[in-house]
Amino acid sequence: MTLKLNTRFADSFVTSEDMSAIMPEVEAAFKKLHDGTGEGSFFRGWLDLPANYDKAEFEAIKKAAEKIRGDSDILIVIGIGGSYLGARAVIEFIKSSNFNKRRNGAPEIYFAGNSISSSSLAQIVELCEGKDFSVNVISKSGETTEPAVAFRVFRELLEKKYGKEGAKERIYATTDKARGKLKELSDRNGYQTFVVPDDVGGRYSVLTAVGLLPIAAAGIDIDALMQGADDARKQYADPDIANNDCCKYAAMRNVMYRKGKKIELMVSYEPAYALMGEWFKQLFGESEGKCGKGLFPASAIFSTDLHSLGQYVQQGERHLFETVVFINEPLADIEIKTDPENADGLNFLAGKTVSFINRKALEATAIAHEDGGVPSILIELSREDEYSLGWLLYFFEKACAVSGYVLGINPFDQPGVEDYKKNMYALLGKPGHEDRREAIERRLR
Amino acid sequence: MTLKLNTRFADSFVTSEDMSAIMPEVEAAFKKLHDGTGEGSFFRGWLDLPANYDKAEFEAIKKAAEKIRGDSDILIVIGIGGSYLGARAVIEFIKSSNFNKRRNGAPEIYFAGNSISSSSLAQIVELCEGKDFSVNVISKSGETTEPAVAFRVFRELLEKKYGKEGAKERIYATTDKARGKLKELSDRNGYQTFVVPDDVGGRYSVLTAVGLLPIAAAGIDIDALMQGADDARKQYADPDIANNDCCKYAAMRNVMYRKGKKIELMVSYEPAYALMGEWFKQLFGESEGKCGKGLFPASAIFSTDLHSLGQYVQQGERHLFETVVFINEPLADIEIKTDPENADGLNFLAGKTVSFINRKALEATAIAHEDGGVPSILIELSREDEYSLGWLLYFFEKACAVSGYVLGINPFDQPGVEDYKKNMYALLGKPGHEDRREAIERRLR
Repeated sequence: MTLKLNTRFADSFVTSEDMSAIMPEVEAAFKKLHDGTGEGSFFRGWLDLPANYDKAEFEAIKKAAEKIRGDSDILIVIGIGGSYLGARAVIEFIKSSNFNKRRNGAPEIYFAGNSISSSSLAQIVELCEGKDFSVNVISKSGETTEPAVAFRVFRELLEKKYGKEGAKERIYATTDKARGKLKELSDRNGYQTFVVPDDVGGRYSVLTAVGLLPIAAAGIDIDALMQGADDARKQYADPDIANNDCCKYAAMRNVMYRKGKKIELMVSYEPAYALMGEWFKQLFGESEGKCGKGLFPASAIFSTDLHSLGQYVQQGERHLFETVVFINEPLADIEIKTDPENADGLNFLAGKTVSFINRKALEATAIAHEDGGVPSILIELSREDEYSLGWLLYFFEKACAVSGYVLGINPFDQPGVEDYKKNMYALLGKPGHEDRREAIERRLR
Repeated sequence: MTLKLNTRFADSFVTSEDMSAIMPEVEAAFKKLHDGTGEGSFFRGWLDLPANYDKAEFEAIKKAAEKIRGDSDILIVIGIGGSYLGARAVIEFIKSSNFNKRRNGAPEIYFAGNSISSSSLAQIVELCEGKDFSVNVISKSGETTEPAVAFRVFRELLEKKYGKEGAKERIYATTDKARGKLKELSDRNGYQTFVVPDDVGGRYSVLTAVGLLPIAAAGIDIDALMQGADDARKQYADPDIANNDCCKYAAMRNVMYRKGKKIELMVSYEPAYALMGEWFKQLFGESEGKCGKGLFPASAIFSTDLHSLGQYVQQGERHLFETVVFINEPLADIEIKTDPENADGLNFLAGKTVSFINRKALEATAIAHEDGGVPSILIELSREDEYSLGWLLYFFEKACAVSGYVLGINPFDQPGVEDYKKNMYALLGKPGHEDRREAIERRLR
């Protein structure tokens, strides 16, 4: 099995009685999701996406990725939120955070338009100097401030360097299939476009063109990624929810929450997982954090952060639990050799592999934290590859939807994201936001 | 002023009455810290370090950094926790997370020995192939598993490539001044050594050789860094704590905590601050997370994470507040131009700079979050440079110590970090840990 849910380090906290008690709610949530009778049900396009995705577009993505790999030293990926995190998380998981040093024929990839930092934007512009580059701009509307600002800058740069005609061969727009500023601009200028589906929200969009084009450009096997997701889809369609790990995970985290655990710490023992932690935080935080409810999603890399947050986890406030993704087969392994001097006192490890030690660190930590009042839900993933990752992505997406319905919220909307935007538009003088401006400015005086 | 504490977005939550009520406690904590009458008072070496650091060693650090810059394509920095986060945080703050692409004469820098991931270790080994490299190993005892394993691997690699004699010219050990396995090995083999002071704990050690050698090797101005810290030291020595921003911040976060805010979200609007967020989490989490107490430290980059955690912050559980570090003068700026087509609808921003928009995003967000029940403490830092950063580091160190005493814990120990280690040594068969082994293994069966 590609993914195994191991609850042994949580069973003392979440009892079988707790599970029996919540299971009817999970069953109802699961049914709602599949029936389409739950809130936000329009946005369930991701549910069967790994089977019914647009095969022609998929091939076009691969072709575009090949072209980018052939004619570009650098690919600038412009997007924010769900149009940023999924692609970056997959690329880092497969190729590590040093992906720009481990290219294997791929362009360097820089992510822009995910902040309003002028320092950051100027630095990325600088990195493009003297290099051939292409741009993948990802925005459903084309009007989100961060990516729109970055796209203005990079479009100008491309047109200056390659001319309008040359630039249009280097701009790939992932956007609405029919409407919006970016779609209009693309059609007018002849950019190749890919589709952000209507029925897949940003945080569930990693397996659409939104994620797939940058991922494929990085040289990652998107067939295997989709295959893993599709096999997970079949696996977690099992309506016998006691055998459905996806539902069990959704159940357990709700039990934790009801018992006063307010923070879910997403942990991995692989540094390459760090951006997956960020992806997870968007998926769950944005899906569940509403109506004054929801687990606060945090993330950490162990053993790194055992020398940082570890003290807090062991002995701080008892309001957290961990969800640990452990990869059983690492990409590479290293055996500890005997040192005749034993200068570092490590000879007791001689003959053991680093991955074996990592596994023991996991077990040691899970026991120590359980003893300290912090239970861990362990997700064992077989390999650090595309197939396993596709599986894991789908696992979390479905678990999130089920969990959200159990929590009693709409897991597919994000009404709170608009509040800061409205204030910002008012402060910046965007037409249509004049009424709010005076009140906001008064508060800043 | 280099650093300005701006409380306007928190004043509705922390009233002047709250502040008056807690101030006597803060005063007592401040006094304890300076008198050395508080718990753990031995570990206050960082307090006057920016003034009384070892000037001769400081010059030796600069010389070693010059040598590394001259003879190495790559510097491998081996360390974990406080022997890792400070250096990396400073390098990324000044040079961004793309520091290996923005070298300006500096070697590429990779951080190893901060996890037990064999994939990660093997990838860094691979990156050294065919390159000249040096190693800075940082460990007080030399026996911490993660750095010791990595150092075994890289020492062997160096000796294979350069011979034992050549290798010793490329190994820099930052360790105890007199004792320990690493000190013994260094003296025996003739490695240049730098000192981890006895009276400065790991998480307070960024301005010792622990942080300074990698920072200087990266081409960062360590004189300016120390000067900023020293000017902060003078500024925050003011016993009139109502005028001491360091004490005010310590007071406010304790008021927040007592009123039920359990999570402190460290936010910046500069992506280059991300690792500073990690450094902050170790400093405060490890200092305060004990005796079942302490704010859970989390971090985010806005506006990036407004499209991720933003929904949760706006409408999720009301158990968090934000501490926002905003940099007033960015490294570079970009002006939005008029687009005759106005294809993206952004022309209302024409003539404005990206940094101006970033500032408006901050104000818009702070107001939206305050309205949603999430107060923000704003720390305005004048520039994104070494001097300002040195100031900020010292500000947080001192605030943390004062805050910890107000909380009623010892801000200088970390007793909980040992628990997982003992279990791990038992599982790995380390001599002296046999008694625990049987019990731990039984629990894993």
